[in-house]
Amino acid sequence: MNNKPTLYASLSPALLHLYDVNDAIVVIIDVLRATSTIATALFNGASFIIPVNSVEKCIETGKKTGAITAGERDGKVAPGLQYGNSPFEYSRDFIDGKPMVLTTTNGTKLLHMAAAKGAKDIITGSFANLTAVCNYLAKQNRNVILACAAWKDRINLEDTLFAGAVIDRIGNLFSIDCDACSIAKGLYQQAKPDLFGFIKAQKASHYVRLSGYGLEKDIQHCMAPDTANILPVYREGRLVITRI
Amino acid sequence: MNNKPTLYASLSPALLHLYDVNDAIVVIIDVLRATSTIATALFNGASFIIPVNSVEKCIETGKKTGAITAGERDGKVAPGLQYGNSPFEYSRDFIDGKPMVLTTTNGTKLLHMAAAKGAKDIITGSFANLTAVCNYLAKQNRNVILACAAWKDRINLEDTLFAGAVIDRIGNLFSIDCDACSIAKGLYQQAKPDLFGFIKAQKASHYVRLSGYGLEKDIQHCMAPDTANILPVYREGRLVITRI
Repeated sequence: MNNKPTLYASLSPALLHLYDVNDAIVVIIDVLRATSTIATALFNGASFIIPVNSVEKCIETGKKTGAITAGERDGKVAPGLQYGNSPFEYSRDFIDGKPMVLTTTNGTKLLHMAAAKGAKDIITGSFANLTAVCNYLAKQNRNVILACAAWKDRINLEDTLFAGAVIDRIGNLFSIDCDACSIAKGLYQQAKPDLFGFIKAQKASHYVRLSGYGLEKDIQHCMAPDTANILPVYREGRLVITRI
Repeated sequence: MNNKPTLYASLSPALLHLYDVNDAIVVIIDVLRATSTIATALFNGASFIIPVNSVEKCIETGKKTGAITAGERDGKVAPGLQYGNSPFEYSRDFIDGKPMVLTTTNGTKLLHMAAAKGAKDIITGSFANLTAVCNYLAKQNRNVILACAAWKDRINLEDTLFAGAVIDRIGNLFSIDCDACSIAKGLYQQAKPDLFGFIKAQKASHYVRLSGYGLEKDIQHCMAPDTANILPVYREGRLVITRI
């Protein structure tokens, strides 16, 4: 008998309903750029991050709490917010000791969707904290759902690659009956020698979108492993660092 | 300016709403086994096939038209129907000159979903008729949506592989801004040397399900190219062969 916990990959928010989020650790994945920025800001000392699912809510929460407001819509700084969704905006000099409120096109929306569906254990993952995510999941002996934020429900390369990276590293600890996991793992194994080169060569749609805004440096940074190797967990409406 | 038509891959019926089916040729893909069986039965002389989305409707249509009733639920012959969903049941000796009504867990449902969403040009694809599908699409100069039937909305390997095979062959004729297409093509390129061996080695979930029912021979047949190389098109409620 196989007593390993299960692992599933949901490659789009439109597929999340297929999986039982109540009985699993849900990993929210939005590599370009929400979950990379979350890891970076917390790594650099942000006291906590409140993810919200609308620009209005972001502005309102900023006013109430004094937190800095940050986020994007369609890849650009959202009007009315103070800062954007680039990890480079959140250096230690700037963010250390400050709380922030964040809203993005896909990542923060998915986090709220998972919470609304009853997920009780939510963490965020990106290449920036790949090792922290894998070490944590490896120790928990719990079911896992790798939940890709995608782009407006369309499957994307970078989030699928991150899911594949996790499966490549720790998939052997789980019972996997999930073709999306095989697909993600195979994709990652193809791309592993040069992740940034791979999404550039494949003309990943979000690569094209962001590089069109002059954000190629952001993409390169977001595809590099363990630049902000902490574990963000979602507790009582806030993302905070937890010990692994 | 790029005047090529567009190509998208929808890896699950739960993602089909993201694409404009009204302005495209929609290729319904259910490799194990509906669209393989459709190609085989038509290749072997079935006069036409009426795809229906329920067992009741299948029985009722069989009674009205005198067509043979065929189909499966959860991989097994559905109770009340005369025949199953295996291409091996539809040899020329048996099916030549006969009409049939078919209902399956995923493929015929997706066809009806696409039609209900307004798709006017629907064809079916499988490895059995890979070349016919590619030749047809290459000549039309139309937008294309590769619509995978998946398994109860969960992305599967075999349908994604077929989408990848089409993109590998004729993707250069289209303008592709679709990460799912890159993923499918890369998967196919990995698997190409031995498709059957690949889905067996990856323990594709539907491989495991069907081989558990003793249907490994079916799977092997369904992964072989051009065994029934005709083009089924959906016209006035019936699948019939069209000239390419």
